[in-house]
Amino acid sequence: MMKVQSFIKGEWLTEGKETELLSAVTGEPVAQMIEADIDYKSALEYARKVGGPKLREMTIHERAFKIKFLGQYLMERKEKYYEISTHTGATRADSWIDIEGGIITAFGISSKSRRHLSDLPWHVEGDTERLSRKGSFIGQHICVPKHGVAVHINAFNFPIWGMLEKMAPAIISGMPVIVKPSPVGSYLSCEVFKDIIESDILPEGAVQFIAADKPGDLLDHLISQDSVAFTGSALTGQKLKAHPNIIANNVQFNLEADSLNCSILGEDVTPDMEEFDLFIKEVAREMTVKTGQKCTAIRRTIVPEHLEDEVIEALKTRLGKTTIGDPGEKETRMGPLASSLQAERFEEQLQQLSEITETVYMSNDDLNGAYTNSRVLVCHQPMQVNEVHRLEAFGPMTTVMPYKNTQEAIDIANKANGSLVGSLFTADDELAHKITMGCAPYHGRFMVINKNSAEESTGHGSPIASLVHGGPGHAGGGEELGGARAVLHNMQRIALQGSPTTLRNIVKQHISGAETTESDKHPFQKYFEELEVGEAMTTKKRTVTEKDVEEFAELSGDHFYAHTDPKAAARSLFGKIVAHGYFVLSATAGLFVDPDEGPVMLNYGLENLRFVAPVFPGDTIQAKLILKRKNIRQQKKDDKFPFGVVYWDVEVTNQDEVLVAEYTILTLMKRKNKLPIDEV
Amino acid sequence: MMKVQSFIKGEWLTEGKETELLSAVTGEPVAQMIEADIDYKSALEYARKVGGPKLREMTIHERAFKIKFLGQYLMERKEKYYEISTHTGATRADSWIDIEGGIITAFGISSKSRRHLSDLPWHVEGDTERLSRKGSFIGQHICVPKHGVAVHINAFNFPIWGMLEKMAPAIISGMPVIVKPSPVGSYLSCEVFKDIIESDILPEGAVQFIAADKPGDLLDHLISQDSVAFTGSALTGQKLKAHPNIIANNVQFNLEADSLNCSILGEDVTPDMEEFDLFIKEVAREMTVKTGQKCTAIRRTIVPEHLEDEVIEALKTRLGKTTIGDPGEKETRMGPLASSLQAERFEEQLQQLSEITETVYMSNDDLNGAYTNSRVLVCHQPMQVNEVHRLEAFGPMTTVMPYKNTQEAIDIANKANGSLVGSLFTADDELAHKITMGCAPYHGRFMVINKNSAEESTGHGSPIASLVHGGPGHAGGGEELGGARAVLHNMQRIALQGSPTTLRNIVKQHISGAETTESDKHPFQKYFEELEVGEAMTTKKRTVTEKDVEEFAELSGDHFYAHTDPKAAARSLFGKIVAHGYFVLSATAGLFVDPDEGPVMLNYGLENLRFVAPVFPGDTIQAKLILKRKNIRQQKKDDKFPFGVVYWDVEVTNQDEVLVAEYTILTLMKRKNKLPIDEV
Repeated sequence: MMKVQSFIKGEWLTEGKETELLSAVTGEPVAQMIEADIDYKSALEYARKVGGPKLREMTIHERAFKIKFLGQYLMERKEKYYEISTHTGATRADSWIDIEGGIITAFGISSKSRRHLSDLPWHVEGDTERLSRKGSFIGQHICVPKHGVAVHINAFNFPIWGMLEKMAPAIISGMPVIVKPSPVGSYLSCEVFKDIIESDILPEGAVQFIAADKPGDLLDHLISQDSVAFTGSALTGQKLKAHPNIIANNVQFNLEADSLNCSILGEDVTPDMEEFDLFIKEVAREMTVKTGQKCTAIRRTIVPEHLEDEVIEALKTRLGKTTIGDPGEKETRMGPLASSLQAERFEEQLQQLSEITETVYMSNDDLNGAYTNSRVLVCHQPMQVNEVHRLEAFGPMTTVMPYKNTQEAIDIANKANGSLVGSLFTADDELAHKITMGCAPYHGRFMVINKNSAEESTGHGSPIASLVHGGPGHAGGGEELGGARAVLHNMQRIALQGSPTTLRNIVKQHISGAETTESDKHPFQKYFEELEVGEAMTTKKRTVTEKDVEEFAELSGDHFYAHTDPKAAARSLFGKIVAHGYFVLSATAGLFVDPDEGPVMLNYGLENLRFVAPVFPGDTIQAKLILKRKNIRQQKKDDKFPFGVVYWDVEVTNQDEVLVAEYTILTLMKRKNKLPIDEV
Repeated sequence: MMKVQSFIKGEWLTEGKETELLSAVTGEPVAQMIEADIDYKSALEYARKVGGPKLREMTIHERAFKIKFLGQYLMERKEKYYEISTHTGATRADSWIDIEGGIITAFGISSKSRRHLSDLPWHVEGDTERLSRKGSFIGQHICVPKHGVAVHINAFNFPIWGMLEKMAPAIISGMPVIVKPSPVGSYLSCEVFKDIIESDILPEGAVQFIAADKPGDLLDHLISQDSVAFTGSALTGQKLKAHPNIIANNVQFNLEADSLNCSILGEDVTPDMEEFDLFIKEVAREMTVKTGQKCTAIRRTIVPEHLEDEVIEALKTRLGKTTIGDPGEKETRMGPLASSLQAERFEEQLQQLSEITETVYMSNDDLNGAYTNSRVLVCHQPMQVNEVHRLEAFGPMTTVMPYKNTQEAIDIANKANGSLVGSLFTADDELAHKITMGCAPYHGRFMVINKNSAEESTGHGSPIASLVHGGPGHAGGGEELGGARAVLHNMQRIALQGSPTTLRNIVKQHISGAETTESDKHPFQKYFEELEVGEAMTTKKRTVTEKDVEEFAELSGDHFYAHTDPKAAARSLFGKIVAHGYFVLSATAGLFVDPDEGPVMLNYGLENLRFVAPVFPGDTIQAKLILKRKNIRQQKKDDKFPFGVVYWDVEVTNQDEVLVAEYTILTLMKRKNKLPIDEV
């Protein structure tokens, strides 16, 4: 039998109160949870003193690579998790969301972090803020790892996804994590956690695991640098959020609660349209996937009142084909709920709802234990009955709510007082605009489907690593995921002020206006490893001639009057012929390029270009390249050699030392050395 | 005598309980507060039903212009506010921070919003997220105005700044505001509020004002779309944050509480260095400005232990020159506290602190009423005594804390458990790096001063519109200001999913991959007003020849081997000669430019350029310009004619319809019409 144990201060705790955890399929014990007597105060201190400092020594990219490698390690072991996952009641398709969905989410956050965040222990965020006339005093925001612990209290429905979607961003931010999963299905979380420890990829103290029904006095010992992310029922979440110690220390608290999500069928859709079938398919799928135990499931099905009967009939037909049974069997489309306790709760919730709704469908299987029937309810007065927008029955059900007109559809959708996700099926983009904007402030995500997008849609119920997850009001008011945002949520944003040079020396990234060091040789002849932030090259000068401008017009084909017609140019903004901006850019490249073979591979991008002053024939231009920042790139199988990306600030000035253009170029520079991150 | 009245549902409430508000200078009544019996529930509903919809009809830029014009209207009346401000105990210099500082903050947020946010009622945030292989299903984050009210509960110390720094971002976000200032000094807030109403710049229902000691049952009626921003004591703030209705509805709550900010003198500094004098000057200034009643004042002065005596002596000398008296008199450097009640509280707080510290300086003026002496305390065991890091005495004082080494300086600074701002005076950038990074997670802002940055420094105590304001832990864990972030804090972020065309039709901004409409004439020949989002122009084709590449190398001076040396190019990434990226860019401009005079003024910028595939001699390129978004620019006095900025996505493809380059260009396009926003 599997054992679910706590992993605290680097040790598995083997002694404690024993509880049997039951299979949702057979009702038989599958695991034993050993609830040890944990000294939570010292567990938190250990994370802060051991795990935190070790994580903070690494750069964001290094931490992100750790998460990538961890994901690869777990992916190799996925079949083991699929096997165990069956006990939670999940079919293979259900388990995919939890297992591979969870690992892919970790990959996604890792990749977005490496793309958008600094390759430093902290992130240098956004542009420098000019705060003074001469520029000797400026501002720069950075986001730094907090000196605390990220405590994650997770829900039972996604033992793996729920753990990884929070752990990945926290670790990448530089914060150690303490995970407390729900006991239900915790044998699956624990199995993955054991592999995380076994992999030895994360540094000592980076992660701890609590096997317990409740987290004891854990919250009493949190300090202001810690944070809590809770996923689960609104009631429990709100209780924890208002915990005296959390309030007193202003501990960051992210709440993601159950919500009564909706899907709307647009007024334009008729039963013969593709969008009608797509809608029915999505509602039925969201009802039955994970046996309806998803925070994002469609609990409210909002339809034009004249289509009520057609929708219900179509749902009945579709649900009638959903084979309920052992999730280990291939033909099974819906397994049991996570436990017989969950099944009892679901029946109670349905009982309450049945007093204010009409039950129009119930699959007529004869079921027991954790198994349950799927149900379709109807509420004919959704604007008058509050409970249908409040009471969440956590299982395979939906309530159909007919609406009279589009405004009423919006009002019904928003009556849940905030939810994680809404969706809309319509072929009319004007209607899509009206409904989406009407619903937007009440939702964290909103999906609009028509026949063009349906084929590739990721579905109403799927949180995506690159998009935010969370919703206002009843859904908790939290925000998770969303690409690099997921990492920044865990960090402290701070505004630094000082001289450009001092700020550059503090943040280790070039800051506009900071002193630079002229490079000892042409920087394009240096390897990635040899280049340093703040290293600069000042080019030779070039006088721009009338002939240059004429020839450039001829060669480029750009005969704009301001560059070619003296009379028309006299009437223009600058009053006379000016050189093409693209000529200035090209001539500047001519000034800074080194013609010979060397470590520079190519200039593959350019950002934030502004032509700030005109260049007239007769003007003499000169450029300065300053190394702004460096990002190592992982060598992939197709790459001939290892390399990194180097960002150079380019400042082009004229003979009066007036800035005429500024921009950033991106070059690929060869590396001398292979690193452990490289794939080949 | 001035009257402080509530302005609710568009009416001034003239009846109610009368309270006299006293001058801090004379102790005599200066205003009468009339505390009406307010129906808070209907006041909130009025804001949601009248003010909200009117604000949401406007674009973010239109709302930002309203705030700019409001600032101009108030700035014209500033002398009246200076006169009234004297009664709060403020000198002219103190009042500047509140009056002009407040208006400049509103200007700053308005300007940043127009620069960084969409000119739509909502903001289209960040890049499109690709979610599918073929690109028919994508994601896009937008930030939308919430359908609620922003409730602002403000502190007594900045009656104007405190009101405007929160009101400006909320209004620009599209949310109506209800302001409840502290009664102390509320006559100044009310005077400004009266002018806001009189100006008639904001739409009906956009703002309401509460004249009251406490906000009654206001918080009981908040819904999840509302938000609360509280500035004041940590104790009150935490009580409100845990208010049952705020917890139950997950009402967004921003807390900015008093904090025990510190300034650190670096170990490297000796008394003969400029940085020593700068430090003394800053500490003394922060103690006495606003008579020490600033949330950002330096309460803890952290100095190397061997410099303790020198620092205290220097502070004594400097404070001895601070003339205390009537703030209306020119020679006065420090006025009274805001009220005699504040003076009593300050004495009590000092009494408590005196039990754990040594008082080494007290200005020996004989003072009464709201007047108070400035005090310097010393705590010799700052790592052992917790209270000096907890108890805030809100007046002209600081506690000197000697440290043994740099790590101890960091530990002492962080012992306050989170603060709004810290500062550091050092000439050693390595030390600056160590201390700043050591302190960063505990601070919302951190200023590093040396002789290079001192002259233009905006000072330890000054929040800046473009930088975030707020701090973790004891400082409340909130975040305000920070440029456009200030506006986004008030909005709901939502991830939209659907086809590119549908999302374009929803958000009204071009989305990569959306269908486009070929323009009926060359778009550069159209005026700003005539151009529409999604409008496109497909250019002619051009075959790139070997001669083109050779001539471009000659003209630009860019003889990089990959473009010029067939043998070396054979060894390069692409295996043969490729055209210069800058040639592709220039030739593309040649393809899309219209040579004739017309509404296009210039192409002044370029963003997010990526050369995604090589162009070889013999390849044929073609470009497509798509109008992505439009931003109106206000016509300034120096401008010859009104114009706007138009962003065009450029896609360059080759003969195989493979994308070779993509980027966004920024053009200035003339407008046909002048608008009310234009200055001339």
